[in-house]
Amino acid sequence: MSHNSFGHLFRVTTWGESHGPALGCIIDGCPPGIQFTEAEIQTYLDKRKPGQSKYTTQRREPDQVRVLSGVLTSEDGVMTTTGTPISMMIENVDQRSKDYGEIARQYRPGHADYAYDVKYGLRDYRGGGRSSARETAARVAAGAIARKVVPGLTVRAALVGMGIHKIDRSRWDWAEVDNNPFFTPDAGSVELFAEYLDGIRKSGSSIGAVIEVVVEGVPAGIGAPLYAKLDQDIASHLMSIPAVKGVEIGNGFEAATLTGEQNADEMRIDADGNPVFLSNNAGGILGGIATGAPIVARFAVKPTSSILTTRRSIDVDKNEVDVMTKGRHDPCVGIRAVPIGEAMLACAIADHYLRHRGQTGRV
Amino acid sequence: MSHNSFGHLFRVTTWGESHGPALGCIIDGCPPGIQFTEAEIQTYLDKRKPGQSKYTTQRREPDQVRVLSGVLTSEDGVMTTTGTPISMMIENVDQRSKDYGEIARQYRPGHADYAYDVKYGLRDYRGGGRSSARETAARVAAGAIARKVVPGLTVRAALVGMGIHKIDRSRWDWAEVDNNPFFTPDAGSVELFAEYLDGIRKSGSSIGAVIEVVVEGVPAGIGAPLYAKLDQDIASHLMSIPAVKGVEIGNGFEAATLTGEQNADEMRIDADGNPVFLSNNAGGILGGIATGAPIVARFAVKPTSSILTTRRSIDVDKNEVDVMTKGRHDPCVGIRAVPIGEAMLACAIADHYLRHRGQTGRV
Amino acid sequence: MSHNSFGHLFRVTTWGESHGPALGCIIDGCPPGIQFTEAEIQTYLDKRKPGQSKYTTQRREPDQVRVLSGVLTSEDGVMTTTGTPISMMIENVDQRSKDYGEIARQYRPGHADYAYDVKYGLRDYRGGGRSSARETAARVAAGAIARKVVPGLTVRAALVGMGIHKIDRSRWDWAEVDNNPFFTPDAGSVELFAEYLDGIRKSGSSIGAVIEVVVEGVPAGIGAPLYAKLDQDIASHLMSIPAVKGVEIGNGFEAATLTGEQNADEMRIDADGNPVFLSNNAGGILGGIATGAPIVARFAVKPTSSILTTRRSIDVDKNEVDVMTKGRHDPCVGIRAVPIGEAMLACAIADHYLRHRGQTGRV
Amino acid sequence: MSHNSFGHLFRVTTWGESHGPALGCIIDGCPPGIQFTEAEIQTYLDKRKPGQSKYTTQRREPDQVRVLSGVLTSEDGVMTTTGTPISMMIENVDQRSKDYGEIARQYRPGHADYAYDVKYGLRDYRGGGRSSARETAARVAAGAIARKVVPGLTVRAALVGMGIHKIDRSRWDWAEVDNNPFFTPDAGSVELFAEYLDGIRKSGSSIGAVIEVVVEGVPAGIGAPLYAKLDQDIASHLMSIPAVKGVEIGNGFEAATLTGEQNADEMRIDADGNPVFLSNNAGGILGGIATGAPIVARFAVKPTSSILTTRRSIDVDKNEVDVMTKGRHDPCVGIRAVPIGEAMLACAIADHYLRHRGQTGRV
Repeated sequence: MSHNSFGHLFRVTTWGESHGPALGCIIDGCPPGIQFTEAEIQTYLDKRKPGQSKYTTQRREPDQVRVLSGVLTSEDGVMTTTGTPISMMIENVDQRSKDYGEIARQYRPGHADYAYDVKYGLRDYRGGGRSSARETAARVAAGAIARKVVPGLTVRAALVGMGIHKIDRSRWDWAEVDNNPFFTPDAGSVELFAEYLDGIRKSGSSIGAVIEVVVEGVPAGIGAPLYAKLDQDIASHLMSIPAVKGVEIGNGFEAATLTGEQNADEMRIDADGNPVFLSNNAGGILGGIATGAPIVARFAVKPTSSILTTRRSIDVDKNEVDVMTKGRHDPCVGIRAVPIGEAMLACAIADHYLRHRGQTGRV
Repeated sequence: MSHNSFGHLFRVTTWGESHGPALGCIIDGCPPGIQFTEAEIQTYLDKRKPGQSKYTTQRREPDQVRVLSGVLTSEDGVMTTTGTPISMMIENVDQRSKDYGEIARQYRPGHADYAYDVKYGLRDYRGGGRSSARETAARVAAGAIARKVVPGLTVRAALVGMGIHKIDRSRWDWAEVDNNPFFTPDAGSVELFAEYLDGIRKSGSSIGAVIEVVVEGVPAGIGAPLYAKLDQDIASHLMSIPAVKGVEIGNGFEAATLTGEQNADEMRIDADGNPVFLSNNAGGILGGIATGAPIVARFAVKPTSSILTTRRSIDVDKNEVDVMTKGRHDPCVGIRAVPIGEAMLACAIADHYLRHRGQTGRV
Repeated sequence: MSHNSFGHLFRVTTWGESHGPALGCIIDGCPPGIQFTEAEIQTYLDKRKPGQSKYTTQRREPDQVRVLSGVLTSEDGVMTTTGTPISMMIENVDQRSKDYGEIARQYRPGHADYAYDVKYGLRDYRGGGRSSARETAARVAAGAIARKVVPGLTVRAALVGMGIHKIDRSRWDWAEVDNNPFFTPDAGSVELFAEYLDGIRKSGSSIGAVIEVVVEGVPAGIGAPLYAKLDQDIASHLMSIPAVKGVEIGNGFEAATLTGEQNADEMRIDADGNPVFLSNNAGGILGGIATGAPIVARFAVKPTSSILTTRRSIDVDKNEVDVMTKGRHDPCVGIRAVPIGEAMLACAIADHYLRHRGQTGRV
Repeated sequence: MSHNSFGHLFRVTTWGESHGPALGCIIDGCPPGIQFTEAEIQTYLDKRKPGQSKYTTQRREPDQVRVLSGVLTSEDGVMTTTGTPISMMIENVDQRSKDYGEIARQYRPGHADYAYDVKYGLRDYRGGGRSSARETAARVAAGAIARKVVPGLTVRAALVGMGIHKIDRSRWDWAEVDNNPFFTPDAGSVELFAEYLDGIRKSGSSIGAVIEVVVEGVPAGIGAPLYAKLDQDIASHLMSIPAVKGVEIGNGFEAATLTGEQNADEMRIDADGNPVFLSNNAGGILGGIATGAPIVARFAVKPTSSILTTRRSIDVDKNEVDVMTKGRHDPCVGIRAVPIGEAMLACAIADHYLRHRGQTGRV
């Protein structure tokens, strides 16, 4: 049991607060012989990094990762995992010094301030402490290695909705995702999102978003029937991301509105003699087990709780107060959740791949 | 790590297949001194039991639970937990003998048949084996005890949507839930659901549903910030129920469409001097920790995969075949998921209550 | 986390008390495709069964195991595991009805009575409840299946010391173990042990013993360097057996008296070109990892706490009392610990085998 | 499941190799509100530190710990735990650069070199990599905090035997332990040990040792009956220390030679009306549960495997070679195991204390 770990055979434990000296993670159970460079990890971290556009917080963090253990490093910097724990650390740099007087005493609506105090009797109020989005840098670093555990795996995510606007799925183009600050796969939506979010940002407000993660190359058979279901662990992994309020697999909540005929994914044998599904309502998972079809998961991110509008709240002495959350914030935290969603899926699948190999010897 | 357990300090492990001699569960870690009777457990099992109305499968199972360990039993049948593992068993009675020839060789669309064979190389094809809805009887038995772990806890669920029809939430009345075969809290929806489901049933089709679970009396402070988030474990627990494709907390996916102002739950001090939330968009959880507000979770159940319409599929020898699933089935498995959802929430909360008490000593 | 489970990928959870209706276990994570019969399991259970000789308790239990789930059974009773949880149950038959008045209120020295009351506030005092040696029947059943997980594994144990007497290791003959009621591999020690234990039994006393377990065919590479060390898990598994007070691997405590030169196991290449150790002080494990040499572990079992001599104790109301433990008891519980030790080693090795296969893909 | 963690509610994960940039640990689940300073942790680290006398390796490591997360730090350096993960790091400084050519290719007898290569297919051969005694610094840091989790706990260890020499227990004086380089509690043994170990050191040999750990102030009731036995977890924790080959509780292996009358710990009521044991053969644990008597555990440490005498071995290409392990080594690693044993016991007890509080609410 652990409060700060996820996964079992590929097990990630994260640590660190927003305004401490550093944050990081340990990967325990990574197979030996996997090769990577710090630069590769960095490309994923850079995608999540704050300050990339006017739509993300202006905090300036280099988010430079340092691998402290678990690898043999060649002269040209290629790291090979040895099977022992991989410790990665990212130093916090831009911890703007300020007076936390009010935040230390007042509970910001939508934040975990009140909940922490009730639970622990004290909290690290600087920048959200452990609940800061900064913690997710550690996940992204872990995800960069997880991707390499399963041969031939492709993990990609995209923003598919922001506030009341959804993308046009008929225009989906993975190549577009990295061409715009919103990670939308629909080039036609970029201008709309830009205008929409500009308005929200300027008014000091915020907005929610929906992200979709698609994983291709998942070996059929990983997962398990009941309490180690692959979809269950995906749900758990995605719900662990701060601000996530909903998770669905395949056609998700829409499945509740369908008939059995509409929902069934029929099967045929393809030209190569392999089983193939004619649709993917199931999102690649049946009975908790991967079928070989692409895994499709979506998650809903609530609007950033920090807004410039005054809200009613209370303080630590149970006085009623009005709170306005100043400071640097993302108007739509959902955007930066895109690489985080990828990382969490990569970790979930790496873990289940090793578990399946362990129990069945089948890969 | 376990494939068939959930929870940590209140840990439930289930076993058994649809057509084996029995099924059951072990509760490990239940606090000592909790009192119950087998009759109490039975009331929850009866709610989930098949054959209660024409809208659920006509398989006839008494679903009679027997407690085999972990209790001291008084002369009048009151059982007191001793802190040791509680083993409960339910015998399977109505295992209609039949020829499984076709089902043994053909993969039913929407079922886990194909996935099991890919994973394990063999499977128990009788009645869905481990993936049968019968397994959920063990969860309901565990949930009946879990409810008693947290003093003052109330766990209730209701069906809030079936196919394209949703209930009118303004007519919500908990007292109605047990007055109709659909577990809807909206008396005004009963006739509509009856007519709708009759049509579906008669045509040999099936339909999905959405269930909402509400838990009151949850002690503020249970849960944890990141990878033992209460919402994360709720998502995991609900997604472990067969046929569930989506889970949300509070306003869930709708949160993605809201602004920070709309989504924030403001706080005040009530007449008794206690903190109170003026709304509950968060569904009772902030930063993974219970706030004391009611916990609200919803989950989407896909339509029963067994339908009388022929669908295209393949068999174990990779021949293309047409499959029609005869036999006794629920036209809307979502209905019987209502008591299961309650049980899973009760278990999740019991577990987090004990974990919180362990780490912090605060209750 | 669990209080009543051991293992991770091959995970066993036991339940049941001495005087309840039944006891049993669940094996979760057993690989699919393993074949066995109930009769095979029974041979191991029979070895552990009470009432086999005058040297073990005269309680009469058939200890008949019933497999309730997780297998496909052929017409001639051959069971094949499906990868789902295997539930096994053994009914208690000979629960001699008696007046527990005194035992319910008095703490028997050396027993866990006092500890249970302090921990839980109540206890099942009938026959030792959960701490009864009867629980170990479930382990033996699990061990019977565990043996089959690792191809070519041989797990054997023997009693090597009883009280002040040790066997003569130069006369070690595995074939002797099942020829005498003490499980000694030294035929020359049988008469001595018989006479010694007769005296102890007749005087209402009891005596301790040392058991050695040897496992051959352990694949080199299983285990892990630090907190999943194979020797660590063996120590944990053996120490979980009731009445065990010490565990050692290889030359164990004697290693503390040796020099580096004496203790080192040198290596050569054998005629087939394979690495071979010239001695086995390490007991087959280096750095927590199996080397391929036989694994050798020993454990010390304390004398049965139930004796006919009156001892000073207290009761539940903190009165000072004199206690004499009547009833049926083993004068040397160490004897029946022999098959239990085998079972625990088999389970530990099966678990590590699956873990190693999972992480490294090497077998 | 984890390969590099121990404990459940008080969970420690360590990382780092002997010759990497740093090593460290994460404590997950530490209760909030516990206060300490880095200087306090340092006192324990200093006790374990190499280079303290001529009897320990001459590697010079400051072993300076840095707390990176999980605390609020006051202006005068007092740290208060917040309940979030505590990350601690110790940088490696004295990594003497050298040619690892031979060690990289040859398997040193008694070391884990061969086992690592068999398991992982590669290894970090520099200074023993993950299996280096340096890893234990992380444990000692964790133990320093664990000691504070249970109010009133005293954890002390001492060396009670070295090679063929044992201390005279009648001269036991805890105050002596820190007065000599051997951590013996028997002042009368210091000269003997000094002379003995000098001879061993000068001849390039090494010797084993036995360490005893005594814990006072353990709350009665912590632990659990079967697979979460306190003695089982102590055995596991101690066996996880590199070079440990045996573990015993209370009178341990001697118990195997005793009768039930000799072994029973009788009870009386003391002058204050509290239960008291008249002896402590059980070492403070009955049925896996702490009785309130002092917990007594011993462990055997094998002689350092690195010796200056040439031993026969093989290399990675299966050539037969002769190996002599040069470099800086402890002639008796058992000495430095004394503070490590304390740390492991402190962690085990902290973990069980939280688990007991969680399940039962009793403290």
